[in-house]
Amino acid sequence: MLKLRSSPPSPFGRKVKLAAAILGLKDRIEIEDANTADPSDSLRSQNPLGKIPALILENGDVLYDSAVIVEYLDFLAGGEKLFPAGEARFAVLRNQTLADGIMEAAILRVYEKRFKEPKYRDPAWDAYQAAKMARGLAYFEANVPAEPSTTADIDAGTLTLACALGYLDIRFGGDWRSGHPKLVAWLDAFEAAVPAFTGTKVPPAPVPDNDPALLQ
Amino acid sequence: MLKLRSSPPSPFGRKVKLAAAILGLKDRIEIEDANTADPSDSLRSQNPLGKIPALILENGDVLYDSAVIVEYLDFLAGGEKLFPAGEARFAVLRNQTLADGIMEAAILRVYEKRFKEPKYRDPAWDAYQAAKMARGLAYFEANVPAEPSTTADIDAGTLTLACALGYLDIRFGGDWRSGHPKLVAWLDAFEAAVPAFTGTKVPPAPVPDNDPALLQ
Repeated sequence: MLKLRSSPPSPFGRKVKLAAAILGLKDRIEIEDANTADPSDSLRSQNPLGKIPALILENGDVLYDSAVIVEYLDFLAGGEKLFPAGEARFAVLRNQTLADGIMEAAILRVYEKRFKEPKYRDPAWDAYQAAKMARGLAYFEANVPAEPSTTADIDAGTLTLACALGYLDIRFGGDWRSGHPKLVAWLDAFEAAVPAFTGTKVPPAPVPDNDPALLQ
Repeated sequence: MLKLRSSPPSPFGRKVKLAAAILGLKDRIEIEDANTADPSDSLRSQNPLGKIPALILENGDVLYDSAVIVEYLDFLAGGEKLFPAGEARFAVLRNQTLADGIMEAAILRVYEKRFKEPKYRDPAWDAYQAAKMARGLAYFEANVPAEPSTTADIDAGTLTLACALGYLDIRFGGDWRSGHPKLVAWLDAFEAAVPAFTGTKVPPAPVPDNDPALLQ
């Protein structure tokens, strides 16, 4: 068995779970929750960056980050399922990077609230990250992907975009929805095509406020 | 011509420059400096995340981040130069992610000083990022790559590791060197094998202190 270290709200972990479902590999992966805030969790010896997801292979090797794991699962499934061949591959990778970047900016904003005492929270830093998210969402609204009908229409870029939007629903109250009607319609089509998206939903949850004990 | 948006001290930009040199593509790429702190720089319309490097293709498409660009250059050079085929590919990608992650943690620490007033700098956040760097360096010291003799021995993982160590020389006074003798010897061998590493060096430079005007 492959072992996936992740946690239910992680958008990067969700990418991997959706990829496994789409690629028919779900039964080959057991999931072990990881706590990134716990120094005694074996995660930091598995991934020195202390980040989830991390995939433990049967020989003990560890793969990360989510982009590497998704490509590895695609390889196990025979290849070129979530990544087109040839030059078309690179636009998909670029879309994946952009959607990952939206998630990373969102998570940096979440960390400000989760880990830092209020006196350390710089409004200009929050606005700087929020602007990255806004420009990324505007790009995808203006370049909305074709609505998928089946999982065969999904690629690593659109998979990541769905997880980014899902994370904004969890942690930012879905406030992206009002300004991005094409993306809202697209995400509805994505969810209809990918039942695992529904199956990996977690309820919206406020970010725990100011627990510096987590930052160790 | 391909156009690379970057800046001389960027470790991620350096990765791309070294890849272009190793792959014999240097003459196909012109470099246009980008200022990530200038909202009027066209960078933010090219990459909504506002990050460098970004590669502008001849048809106007834009690729980012550095991992995507390096793989694209490898594709232009015929493929499988900086990435081995088959399952071996994934350890290289994982090593690239780890070295990228060391750079990202380092840059988050630099940003604390560069962008934030002292009152917003949280020592626990700095220590949290520093610990990621330390664990990553310890991993590479314990799993030091084979010393390369020629550029044919370089892969995307070792290329990224060299840029990470080079960045620590620029921005952190090379203090990683005292605790990591195997990596020091490895980097010497890397530099002897890759003349472009010397050619892309910038002098160590202190991080500009506390200029919140840059955070816009």
